[in-house]
Amino acid sequence: MKVALASNVPGRTTTMSPPSMPGGVVVLTGGVGGAKLALGLSQLLPPGQLTAIVNTGDDFTHLGLHVSPDIDTLLYTLSGRAHAVQGWGRQDESWSFMAALESLGGENWFRLGDGDLALHVLRTARLRAGEPLSRIVASFASQWGLSIRVLPASDERVATTLDCDEGPLSFQDYFVKRRCEPIVRRIEFDGAAESRPAPGVVKAIAAAGAILIAPSNPLLSVAPILAVPGLREALVAASAPVVAVSPLVGGEAVKGPTAVLMRQLGLPSTPRSIATLYDGLIDGLLVDERDASDDLPVPHAVADTLMHTLDDRVRVASAALALARELAAMGAR
Amino acid sequence: MKVALASNVPGRTTTMSPPSMPGGVVVLTGGVGGAKLALGLSQLLPPGQLTAIVNTGDDFTHLGLHVSPDIDTLLYTLSGRAHAVQGWGRQDESWSFMAALESLGGENWFRLGDGDLALHVLRTARLRAGEPLSRIVASFASQWGLSIRVLPASDERVATTLDCDEGPLSFQDYFVKRRCEPIVRRIEFDGAAESRPAPGVVKAIAAAGAILIAPSNPLLSVAPILAVPGLREALVAASAPVVAVSPLVGGEAVKGPTAVLMRQLGLPSTPRSIATLYDGLIDGLLVDERDASDDLPVPHAVADTLMHTLDDRVRVASAALALARELAAMGAR
Repeated sequence: MKVALASNVPGRTTTMSPPSMPGGVVVLTGGVGGAKLALGLSQLLPPGQLTAIVNTGDDFTHLGLHVSPDIDTLLYTLSGRAHAVQGWGRQDESWSFMAALESLGGENWFRLGDGDLALHVLRTARLRAGEPLSRIVASFASQWGLSIRVLPASDERVATTLDCDEGPLSFQDYFVKRRCEPIVRRIEFDGAAESRPAPGVVKAIAAAGAILIAPSNPLLSVAPILAVPGLREALVAASAPVVAVSPLVGGEAVKGPTAVLMRQLGLPSTPRSIATLYDGLIDGLLVDERDASDDLPVPHAVADTLMHTLDDRVRVASAALALARELAAMGAR
Repeated sequence: MKVALASNVPGRTTTMSPPSMPGGVVVLTGGVGGAKLALGLSQLLPPGQLTAIVNTGDDFTHLGLHVSPDIDTLLYTLSGRAHAVQGWGRQDESWSFMAALESLGGENWFRLGDGDLALHVLRTARLRAGEPLSRIVASFASQWGLSIRVLPASDERVATTLDCDEGPLSFQDYFVKRRCEPIVRRIEFDGAAESRPAPGVVKAIAAAGAILIAPSNPLLSVAPILAVPGLREALVAASAPVVAVSPLVGGEAVKGPTAVLMRQLGLPSTPRSIATLYDGLIDGLLVDERDASDDLPVPHAVADTLMHTLDDRVRVASAALALARELAAMGAR
């Protein structure tokens, strides 16, 4: 069923009234695409109404430092510190650390910018002192004056591992070191079984007026969130409709290996496959206009989901919220 | 007894032949002053002939990173990376890390430059992986192409603690945070009793043709080295003469709290007190011309010991080696 969105008129977003959402909005998010949607949502919602639940499956320890790529991308994006083009790291970054590290023969396959290091060093020191990740991230967000709640999916370690044709690879080995080249056969989330949702996660989901799944990689960014026991159950039990934004644009990912991975795992890179991956979880799917199809097992709406500019991000956020609102009005839950 | 040094003619150093020293030269050193002398020595001696045994009493863990201030000052000085004026850190340093750290509310009393961080991060990661400090430092020195052997006095933790009027302070708390303002009553070296000389230290001392004690703080920089069990004994048993370069110039320290500390601990800030502090250990003392005195209990020579330029450093190194050579010729041991 295709849902018509009154507010989904390209170029008209600025004329809309801010969509207040009783109970607030929860967004499940991975890296860059998710951060863009979260930024769009943050422009639409009153302060304090948005909670981001962030993938930690990409987290890893590098040179003894705990790196949380998706959390940091979100913090950088929401605080206006993100690099505009490269899709990771900070704008106006300096690279003295890497230069000195290389002069000492240190590993250089993972680029750590000088400013970026501050998050890793401080996070690592505070984790070692026994503070949970969620509290550290909350303090970073608060120090940067963010009005958005940023929650790691779990305070426990959930490590994405890719079972590839050449053997098992950790996420960063696959993603950065091997540039997503190995053929993936299976994806696992080490530690997920023993993990619990971070404090606040289940409550935010239960209270939310709308729940969104960002256009992040369903297999690598959203699946590790859903692998945390109790998290999927909380989404299923939520009173708010759950709307996913398809990460596909014209059957391909805007960035990253989503489409390639889907095909390697036997799924055509179509919105239908996205709906299948989120089967039993979502009430609606926002699909890019280039992938419009009537052949979808869930209610859906169509929009231009490319998010180059801030206006684009607000427009996509607005369309996703509008779909959630329509679904709620239709009694989807 | 005053020893006349044939080679100690100011402005004439460049005409001297390089003083080869069978068995090599060992220098015990702390921070900036010691690094300057070591640099001077490195200009005089053939490659591979100089071993620096470095104080680790100032080492501490900051933000989870193992910082070795004296070792790093020496590595920076010998490799031409040291800041020319400020007495610590690197030239052309950038400060993005500190700015980001401050924005996150992290501690900022100890300044960590972006390039400087590389040593701390890599050292910490390798220490955590079980590698001893001496091997890590050797690899840094080798990566930077140094022909000088840099040895920490010990691979075990020796932590300088100052018992002050306001209670006990760790070295960095006293030195950086409190800017040497508290009155010191006593100095202790935690962990010294359980420490051992790092591999190579005792052997280098036994083999040396000359042993120098740099014009570093005898109480804070050299005492922690001597507190390592076996190290003082190795110096006493050495066949080479031991020559200290007085850290005083006109009764004051060139940098740091040496003279103040001496007076707080009841010692006049004179070369005689320096000789007393090294009693039973040194065969000769190189004294600055501003502190010349006949009232010294050890053989001594006089020179301009200020080391502003590279030529100065070579000149002081040359005078110290000349005194050691004269003492050896006189059969001091």
